[in-house]
Amino acid sequence: MQTPWEYRFAHRMQKMGSSVIRELLKLTEQPDIISFGGGLPAPEVFPVKEFQEACNRVLTEHGAQALQYSTTEGYRPLREMIARHTERYKVSVNPDNILITSGSQQALDFLGRLFINRGDFIVVESPTYLGALQAWNAYGAQYISVPADKDGMIVDELEAALRVGPKFIYVLPNFQNPSGSTLNLERRRRLVALADQYGVPIIEDDPYGQLRYDGEHLPSVVYLDAQYRNDGDHEYTGNVIYLSTFSKLLAPGLRLAWVVAPQKVIQKLVMTKQAADLHTSSFNQQVAYEVGKGGFLDEHVKVIRSTYKERRDVMLEMMDEMFPAEMRWTRPQGGMFLWGMMPEGVDAAEVLKIAIERKVAFVPGAAFHPNGGGNNTMRINFSYSSPELIREGITRLGATLKEVLKKNGYH
Amino acid sequence: MQTPWEYRFAHRMQKMGSSVIRELLKLTEQPDIISFGGGLPAPEVFPVKEFQEACNRVLTEHGAQALQYSTTEGYRPLREMIARHTERYKVSVNPDNILITSGSQQALDFLGRLFINRGDFIVVESPTYLGALQAWNAYGAQYISVPADKDGMIVDELEAALRVGPKFIYVLPNFQNPSGSTLNLERRRRLVALADQYGVPIIEDDPYGQLRYDGEHLPSVVYLDAQYRNDGDHEYTGNVIYLSTFSKLLAPGLRLAWVVAPQKVIQKLVMTKQAADLHTSSFNQQVAYEVGKGGFLDEHVKVIRSTYKERRDVMLEMMDEMFPAEMRWTRPQGGMFLWGMMPEGVDAAEVLKIAIERKVAFVPGAAFHPNGGGNNTMRINFSYSSPELIREGITRLGATLKEVLKKNGYH
Repeated sequence: MQTPWEYRFAHRMQKMGSSVIRELLKLTEQPDIISFGGGLPAPEVFPVKEFQEACNRVLTEHGAQALQYSTTEGYRPLREMIARHTERYKVSVNPDNILITSGSQQALDFLGRLFINRGDFIVVESPTYLGALQAWNAYGAQYISVPADKDGMIVDELEAALRVGPKFIYVLPNFQNPSGSTLNLERRRRLVALADQYGVPIIEDDPYGQLRYDGEHLPSVVYLDAQYRNDGDHEYTGNVIYLSTFSKLLAPGLRLAWVVAPQKVIQKLVMTKQAADLHTSSFNQQVAYEVGKGGFLDEHVKVIRSTYKERRDVMLEMMDEMFPAEMRWTRPQGGMFLWGMMPEGVDAAEVLKIAIERKVAFVPGAAFHPNGGGNNTMRINFSYSSPELIREGITRLGATLKEVLKKNGYH
Repeated sequence: MQTPWEYRFAHRMQKMGSSVIRELLKLTEQPDIISFGGGLPAPEVFPVKEFQEACNRVLTEHGAQALQYSTTEGYRPLREMIARHTERYKVSVNPDNILITSGSQQALDFLGRLFINRGDFIVVESPTYLGALQAWNAYGAQYISVPADKDGMIVDELEAALRVGPKFIYVLPNFQNPSGSTLNLERRRRLVALADQYGVPIIEDDPYGQLRYDGEHLPSVVYLDAQYRNDGDHEYTGNVIYLSTFSKLLAPGLRLAWVVAPQKVIQKLVMTKQAADLHTSSFNQQVAYEVGKGGFLDEHVKVIRSTYKERRDVMLEMMDEMFPAEMRWTRPQGGMFLWGMMPEGVDAAEVLKIAIERKVAFVPGAAFHPNGGGNNTMRINFSYSSPELIREGITRLGATLKEVLKKNGYH
């Protein structure tokens, strides 16, 4: 007889659905759709030539080592490079504070596995990153949403959330996915102080920190935490687990990211990774190190910044021109996304259906709200499409929005 | 204040220890140790030149695609290649029956996540693969051990285990890790029939199936299951989930493996992978496809076979000469491991301590027994070390064994 598989699956699978964004990525494989949906870097900025040279060097100079099994923690020269990079931002760490993961999504998954018992509460911004919710739903997390505005999480509302006794606070301080907003300095300091007061750790997710196009770099939460507790030159032993990635600086197809944390946390994450996939590709780690070791990334990030800045500017300019008066949107200082808000009661999913007929796509915002709401919002990516396609796509989207708003009684 | 991290970790982390094998891998990084401990392929057989050419072609011809995000299921041409490979063994599948994972360890982890509720029973061979136990311990699995001999799991003892109501049966039919034994044809057929009778799925883990050095290839369990239910040319919808990997055929540093299963299972695994790490490296998948697409693997596997056959033969010959009369060991027809058994009451962990002083290493067998026992056993790898090092290492190990046996009253 055939196996009735659906009755064999574990309890944790019952709540698991496919990702809206991943399913959208499939739609956007149709070449005639202008997609503002995914969170893809511009393929034009991938340093293909540098990769090719690095692959050749790695395979010529130590091919057997690059193709062999390696240690779970990650390639040591790469971790040393990341430690030096982190120290630039005045956070004192060594390679034992660093774990290489297969993309930041894996870091989020491991942190869920490490911390979340079924029913545990997690503090998130509202809206927050969908991938984190997907990772943590599998462990039975519940969420306390703290509202955010253009300056990030409204920290005045954090204290009540902390009195629930959450497992940790999850925050994307720079050019947040999905909203594009940046947590301001005063709020960062209060976040650190409140988290310390209540003894609740912070997960700082920072994929876009270096992709700033205007304004001043703000100190990271992990740095402010080190400063708050007067760590000085000592190894970091604070309250923050910091995540970043090569996906936006180099190439997401490598699946390379990292966690910076106190050693006690890293040691447990290493055990988790042993059981989960042994280690991240030795070859990719060595190639990334080879590409980055001579300071190339510092130059390359300038190219990325100027490319994305242009795209953001074109998009904002076109939105000013094409979007109906009832629409509001964020004006991010960096990153890859902005956030559109229609009047309450207008449904972004309805807009998407019509938009796809007109060959333009975005992500409806509801999925970024773990406790409901946000049906009138949308995430719009500006990094992937060329300026020409952005002009055309925003024109189409503007027309779609006007049509839907009219249908909803606006004109 | 500092965070008392150990009280923040989730319940599932309490039982998680570091892998004996991984910790050993660290020891074996000392260059003067002859290690029969790890499960490493011989670096001499890695096709470095072919990789270099493939990297260059992939980056030249579609570099931007190879460095970009891609779909969770895996690179379609690679899945098509695996489907054709599977059909050679008369199992009718298409790319939708296949998921690419970041190594087989990840497939084991995902299967645990998909199937295991805390307390569920899993049927395993005794001894069984340590990595599977590590993956499933995190989900709270309990194990029913079915003893094995030189012909694999003693299927006569399986029926009682099935009446416990296990979630699935886990079996490595070819040149098992750790024992080196191969499940014979009659037992394979009975395994399939019993699993069907009790409605319990089988996970067939087959990393070494193509690494046979003597004797005839035996049909896989997934094929026998298809035959048992008269699938004919229809797509496979049976009771077996089949795992294999590029780690032993190509290079483990790529972290590339695959699952073959009915579509209902693959769809759930895809959702699991979305939440866990989005997808396996696009670049590595395209490079592996580029290396393999012209039939190179069929030629390459012959090189691996002849290399490992020589090493196995040298090891068996040296053991015949150097090991004390009280030792017994398996004579595997393929794979990478053989299994040593000392008299009951002699402790392999004690032997290892002395062996490491003499600069030779293996893995004590206790860890491969989830329900205890096996303290007198050891796993010995023959694929990694050169014939010269095997001669020297077995000489050292033989002397160590004689010393320990003498201490234990044997002479």
